[in-house]
Amino acid sequence: MDIVVLDEAALRARVKISHEAMAVVEAAFAALGRGGVVMPPVLHLDLPERHAEMDVKTAYVPGLPSMALKVSTGFFDNPKRGLPSLSGMMTLLSAETGRVEAVLLDNGYLTDVRTALAGAIAADRLARPDARIAGIIGTGLQARLQLEALRLVRPIQRVLLWGRDPAKAAALAGELKAGFGLPVTAAPAEQVVREADIVVTTTAAREPVILADWLHPGLHVTAMGSDAPGKQELDPEILSRADRVVVDRRSQCERLGELRAALAAGTISSDRPIDELGEIVAGLKPGRRSADEITVCDLTGTGAQDTAIAVHAVRAAA
Amino acid sequence: MDIVVLDEAALRARVKISHEAMAVVEAAFAALGRGGVVMPPVLHLDLPERHAEMDVKTAYVPGLPSMALKVSTGFFDNPKRGLPSLSGMMTLLSAETGRVEAVLLDNGYLTDVRTALAGAIAADRLARPDARIAGIIGTGLQARLQLEALRLVRPIQRVLLWGRDPAKAAALAGELKAGFGLPVTAAPAEQVVREADIVVTTTAAREPVILADWLHPGLHVTAMGSDAPGKQELDPEILSRADRVVVDRRSQCERLGELRAALAAGTISSDRPIDELGEIVAGLKPGRRSADEITVCDLTGTGAQDTAIAVHAVRAAA
Repeated sequence: MDIVVLDEAALRARVKISHEAMAVVEAAFAALGRGGVVMPPVLHLDLPERHAEMDVKTAYVPGLPSMALKVSTGFFDNPKRGLPSLSGMMTLLSAETGRVEAVLLDNGYLTDVRTALAGAIAADRLARPDARIAGIIGTGLQARLQLEALRLVRPIQRVLLWGRDPAKAAALAGELKAGFGLPVTAAPAEQVVREADIVVTTTAAREPVILADWLHPGLHVTAMGSDAPGKQELDPEILSRADRVVVDRRSQCERLGELRAALAAGTISSDRPIDELGEIVAGLKPGRRSADEITVCDLTGTGAQDTAIAVHAVRAAA
Repeated sequence: MDIVVLDEAALRARVKISHEAMAVVEAAFAALGRGGVVMPPVLHLDLPERHAEMDVKTAYVPGLPSMALKVSTGFFDNPKRGLPSLSGMMTLLSAETGRVEAVLLDNGYLTDVRTALAGAIAADRLARPDARIAGIIGTGLQARLQLEALRLVRPIQRVLLWGRDPAKAAALAGELKAGFGLPVTAAPAEQVVREADIVVTTTAAREPVILADWLHPGLHVTAMGSDAPGKQELDPEILSRADRVVVDRRSQCERLGELRAALAAGTISSDRPIDELGEIVAGLKPGRRSADEITVCDLTGTGAQDTAIAVHAVRAAA
């Protein structure tokens, strides 16, 4: 039995935000939509005495030859030792035999990629086909990667971005401008939302950073920052004002996403019609239905995406 | 970051059923008894379309430098391909930083060892100090390993064993006799229990294989086979007749162990005093209290043991 072991450098060299990787993640969303995916709730370990936490995700996806088991750690005293807080790896097991096929020591890189690709898939189904202005909320790694992924699916010509720290926002605007050859401007959050065709929120915020009054016809918003019970990026009114609310996994978004916050605030009720992105990818539900509707997609990240990106990584490295 | 990768052959060469390995597993039981272990419920994945299942266990154990994440797979069509049904591996993460330290491609070997060692730890605390006759129920791998482990803690001079298949029982008796230089006799289950000082049940039975009427003063029984809701090795009367019932983890044994079957049968009530083996190892509860008492230990296997044996394996390989 030959087991493939790939470290972060090898994975970074081979796995990119690309149409090819996106296609594998799309296949996982389609399988989620059609049913047959076996995806248990996230196994979460709180380690208060270490100021740390650990999450384990996995999913069996019909049609993919393997399944990933992913561990993600956050050890928040690591920066004192000169180490990043976040880390993790994936193990790929054969879906035919259960034998270990590969160990991907990615330190979270593959999660970054599959998270960005989910943003592209959401925009591809829900943003206006002619969306040209991207609005990025946040200045972290996903701010960069979500923009890169959006460019796979929409003819982005201008970028507005906002960050809580104006210096970081200005620095990121310069970096993205140089990196993508696009006009990129740091701006107030309200202006970003009012002017953009697509907004992606990428923060770890625990209170709303964008407000319902800023919405306008034709806007698509992807909220990908919230992935834990205390997190929230959107004014809960946004989910009631939107013409369409889409989620990656309803059960998970009700616990971890913007859906949780909106249900708690009472701005939407539990019988609000909500579609899963996978149902749209599978063709069971429509994507954007008109040029004017306001769409919101709440992404919390699924084990099915992990399985998809791990399968893609091993193929790309072969 | 140097990550240790050890395959099954390397682990078999370095990790043995030994007092040294037992001491590390004992430390994990003591931590379970004292509290502070963080051990989420087993993550279980059923894959009926593959005739397969997957379990994930993990535990943070105060005092141990790392934590294991273990995946165990059962793909029951594997024998048709000439592969064993069971497989698995462990990942060892630093309990200080969350970074991956080692990947142990053991195919379940470390689980076999830590399971056998738990049997030895139970016998060490609960069997009579002068226990000389071991009774083994079952003819699988754990039948062999439990006997090997018992010899670490008690002066075993004679072995009686029973298996559902008389030919397998006779063959195993011959093998153990040759391997350990002890008299080993295949016998009816009733005779095994009536004559033995320590009985270890190691089967995948779904109905009782030993009966309460066979119990006698001074006997200790370790039931390690049941680790899933449908499994049961002991007549549920055994738990009510025993003077002492001990478990590895009460919450887990109520779902997966003999405790589940006895509670379901109503032979014991939910307020029956039951101790955890870790409380005894930690000195918070007594071990065997008299020569005559009948003791039963229900083992389902814990993530804390996995963390312990993985820590030991990496040390032993260093």
